[in-house]
Amino acid sequence: MGEIEGKAIVYSGYGDPKKHLKAIKFKVREPEEKEVVLRLMACPINPSDLNQVQGTYLALPPMTTELDPETPCAVGGNEAAFEVIKVGRGVTKFQAGDWALPTRGNFGTWRTHAIAHEDQMNLIKDRSGITPVQAATVSVNLATAHRLLTKFADMKPGDWFIQNAGNSGVCRAATQLGKLWGYKSISVVRKRPDFEQLKAELKSLGADQVVTEDEIAQPEFTQTVKQWIGDAPLKLALNCVGGESCLNIASQLSEDGHLVTYGSMSKKPIMVPGSQTVFKNVTSHGCWLSGWAAKHPHDRYLLVLELLKLVAEGKIKDVPNTQHTWSEDQSVEEFQKTYFEALDANLNGKGKQIFIMK
Amino acid sequence: MGEIEGKAIVYSGYGDPKKHLKAIKFKVREPEEKEVVLRLMACPINPSDLNQVQGTYLALPPMTTELDPETPCAVGGNEAAFEVIKVGRGVTKFQAGDWALPTRGNFGTWRTHAIAHEDQMNLIKDRSGITPVQAATVSVNLATAHRLLTKFADMKPGDWFIQNAGNSGVCRAATQLGKLWGYKSISVVRKRPDFEQLKAELKSLGADQVVTEDEIAQPEFTQTVKQWIGDAPLKLALNCVGGESCLNIASQLSEDGHLVTYGSMSKKPIMVPGSQTVFKNVTSHGCWLSGWAAKHPHDRYLLVLELLKLVAEGKIKDVPNTQHTWSEDQSVEEFQKTYFEALDANLNGKGKQIFIMK
Repeated sequence: MGEIEGKAIVYSGYGDPKKHLKAIKFKVREPEEKEVVLRLMACPINPSDLNQVQGTYLALPPMTTELDPETPCAVGGNEAAFEVIKVGRGVTKFQAGDWALPTRGNFGTWRTHAIAHEDQMNLIKDRSGITPVQAATVSVNLATAHRLLTKFADMKPGDWFIQNAGNSGVCRAATQLGKLWGYKSISVVRKRPDFEQLKAELKSLGADQVVTEDEIAQPEFTQTVKQWIGDAPLKLALNCVGGESCLNIASQLSEDGHLVTYGSMSKKPIMVPGSQTVFKNVTSHGCWLSGWAAKHPHDRYLLVLELLKLVAEGKIKDVPNTQHTWSEDQSVEEFQKTYFEALDANLNGKGKQIFIMK
Repeated sequence: MGEIEGKAIVYSGYGDPKKHLKAIKFKVREPEEKEVVLRLMACPINPSDLNQVQGTYLALPPMTTELDPETPCAVGGNEAAFEVIKVGRGVTKFQAGDWALPTRGNFGTWRTHAIAHEDQMNLIKDRSGITPVQAATVSVNLATAHRLLTKFADMKPGDWFIQNAGNSGVCRAATQLGKLWGYKSISVVRKRPDFEQLKAELKSLGADQVVTEDEIAQPEFTQTVKQWIGDAPLKLALNCVGGESCLNIASQLSEDGHLVTYGSMSKKPIMVPGSQTVFKNVTSHGCWLSGWAAKHPHDRYLLVLELLKLVAEGKIKDVPNTQHTWSEDQSVEEFQKTYFEALDANLNGKGKQIFIMK
């Protein structure tokens, strides 16, 4: 391998990401028999990555001395596309130049290089029409949206769903997948100065209606929703906020409807009106992609391939994002500076931040 | 029929039961071809009966001029045991002297007499060992408890369930059915001066643990619950309160647990912690007995027969109750006075009130 110096964003304790994350450098060693050496192509910051650093996420990666013999640490991040740059003598699945995605969460993706057992990676065999950024961003948001729309309600073309945090990556993905499959959607977003612009953008992705949290919180708004949907059922409410926001979207569900929660940004409980639950038989479910993927890694792989195909065909647009460049020859200080600029943008609500390797 | 004067407790508008309920008298007419004439044996006041008068219940009986040509009204009450006293010439299912229960809700049971199509009534063929009061009180609370324990979680002997409003009729029924089937239970009750007495009583019915709402609201109480249940799963939480009480019992559920709501006494939303929903895959369901029974009347009948068998075998104790006597020769004013004494006792938390016919 010559002398490659890898860099990674790691943490050794849980709490405020700005206090606990730091960059370290390490020597990229030779691969063993069944191992591959990986070079990052692209990786995003996802909200659940930061929940792991905060220690509030259920599945936390083990802290190891693999990269720093002095201080056990975990590499942050869970989603990335890597290029295979060298393979061990016993590797059969990969060759140099292949694109590879981690099979599971907790791989630690905020790093320039990694060594992995070939079984820890999935090969992206057909990458025609796919960019590294696209390959690096289908495994979490798009996969979550796919499961939310397919696993809980028996959605048919013409059926409606409603979702809060309508501006998020998962919601943009659900809006587009829903549109592809003939479902109609209502996206609820927070009131903001650029609401009309965002509304137009979400409608261009396929949202049928876009409303603010303030509007949907008005009891009389239920009548407006009824006018929109007519006789069609509103079968599914997708929640990643909790609290009042959850209550407001759950309140719109038709009889036998399903509320599915995949996050709780507000840290408030999941809420459904008692009358919806008892008289309308509304069921509330949880959907945790990482938990499912850990139990069904092959199904996750098949889902990722299906999603990449849709992306390659131009059926799903990229989430708006800001890209930051890492390079092999920059210092660990520069590497860390780039990370924190992106982290600050993420924490300040500036949308999806993605690192690409030059 | 000679000249039988029937009496009934009716309402012509929705709101405060003490303002809207009143007694009326009516002439009991001859039965038509397929009709039976019924004489009340016993009927209770159930909480959902009063929700109907308040207009807050989803299924409301139609107001008709059957009993009072001047003012359309509905007879209150949904549960009763009747004796058949006369049958129409085409009736095949019943003969005079038979015991009969309404097949569905909204029959209007707070009345001394009723005329019904034979298809509106279920025959209790084998009544050995069953009192009228028992026959009049299996169709709602016991049937609800049976469905709560059997239709949502895959309960096995040794599994645990938890329930709020542990002093209620449904909870007492669930405690006893659970005990019969080998399930272990935690009943949560409001703090009260006679807590130790109530605890002893509920334990005598089969409750394994009895705690107050205040105790279960302490975050550290989760450890106590864990000590109680050990390695066994807490698969089911039964909720008829909503709000914080619901949140506190749902918080105790094991992975893949089920919260089932059959009422919302507090009028507050159903609440589950986000982490339970997402990471522990806790599902929240509604269970509405009347809605199910309306769609599956024969299944309800089979369930009632199964429950009456358990009652006849002495496997289920009667809910503690206060009995009030109605008689054929009392005036409508006396009849109404007796009703309101029972209603006041019900509204003042004095437990289950039952009317029996002398």
